[in-house]
Amino acid sequence: MSSTVLYMSMSLDGFIAGPNEGPGNGLGDGGDRLHDWALRSEVTGVDRQVVDEMMSTGAIVCGRGTYEPANGWGGDHHDNVPVFVLTRRPDAQQPQWPNVTYVADVESAMSRAKAAAGEKDVLVHGAGTAQLAVAAGVLDELEIHLIPVLLGEGRPLFEHLGAGQRELEQVRVLGGSEATHLRYRVRR
Amino acid sequence: MSSTVLYMSMSLDGFIAGPNEGPGNGLGDGGDRLHDWALRSEVTGVDRQVVDEMMSTGAIVCGRGTYEPANGWGGDHHDNVPVFVLTRRPDAQQPQWPNVTYVADVESAMSRAKAAAGEKDVLVHGAGTAQLAVAAGVLDELEIHLIPVLLGEGRPLFEHLGAGQRELEQVRVLGGSEATHLRYRVRR
Repeated sequence: MSSTVLYMSMSLDGFIAGPNEGPGNGLGDGGDRLHDWALRSEVTGVDRQVVDEMMSTGAIVCGRGTYEPANGWGGDHHDNVPVFVLTRRPDAQQPQWPNVTYVADVESAMSRAKAAAGEKDVLVHGAGTAQLAVAAGVLDELEIHLIPVLLGEGRPLFEHLGAGQRELEQVRVLGGSEATHLRYRVRR
Repeated sequence: MSSTVLYMSMSLDGFIAGPNEGPGNGLGDGGDRLHDWALRSEVTGVDRQVVDEMMSTGAIVCGRGTYEPANGWGGDHHDNVPVFVLTRRPDAQQPQWPNVTYVADVESAMSRAKAAAGEKDVLVHGAGTAQLAVAAGVLDELEIHLIPVLLGEGRPLFEHLGAGQRELEQVRVLGGSEATHLRYRVRR
């Protein structure tokens, strides 16, 4: 069955981007460090396995904070799968590419992405989207690439969740060349 | 050679205690959850291994925020090893037990603990102490017990570090019955 899976690289102190994010500095100061494991010239072993899994998803849900700094991946993240972009005002503007749809709420984005993905999983990207999806109970799994670095400041993956314990089931741990890939299922 | 090693249980969203910490609620709301893996009636396998390593350290450094809610472990954390407690005013009060010494700064606490521990490692406990030790460059290793839960609010392990990338070397990953035990060495 198709699952919605958050894929995020995170520092041990919980950041997915460094401080001073902005145009031309989309990952913030030092944020590139979090993606070294996936962007090196040769990605092998379990790192390769995890990238391949991510690239075999059947649809994408992300926020504008992920989509825009990436320039919409030129309209094709991988295999021309549909991309659902969360935005507060989906009617204000037309997306630039045919595979991209602007959606106002995370529940619709997730259900439309699942329908589009068929048997495949849905790739979820972005801290804001993750927070909304966890809060709305529409995130099925998390694949966290935990990076052995302390950034000290930056954009946290988990904030604004509010008090209230959410149990996860750890379903896999893979030790990559640098990142540790931690897979969790959200318990319902 | 003796290393100073931070042992802490942390939720996936980075908390070492839940919200509303206070007298009688030392771990905050839901914070007990983080210690289930170590406090169950039978601790076995790699969980046992990690507890045994922690309990074979030769000295302890912690803050009052850890020491006082634990009632000073009755003066004996394990094997009567010396305990160095960080406090802003070490002369204001005498410790209640002979193995306990109040110390004003983290550098002195760490070097005295290392001297006392001889060949053994030093067990470091507490978020405030961890932050001071990382900032001062006197923490050698971290053993994080990562717990599959999101607490949403509480006391973060890593805060007040300030910007500036601190590289770690991941030296071990052990998948316990519930916690994932992540061992890092601080790169110098």
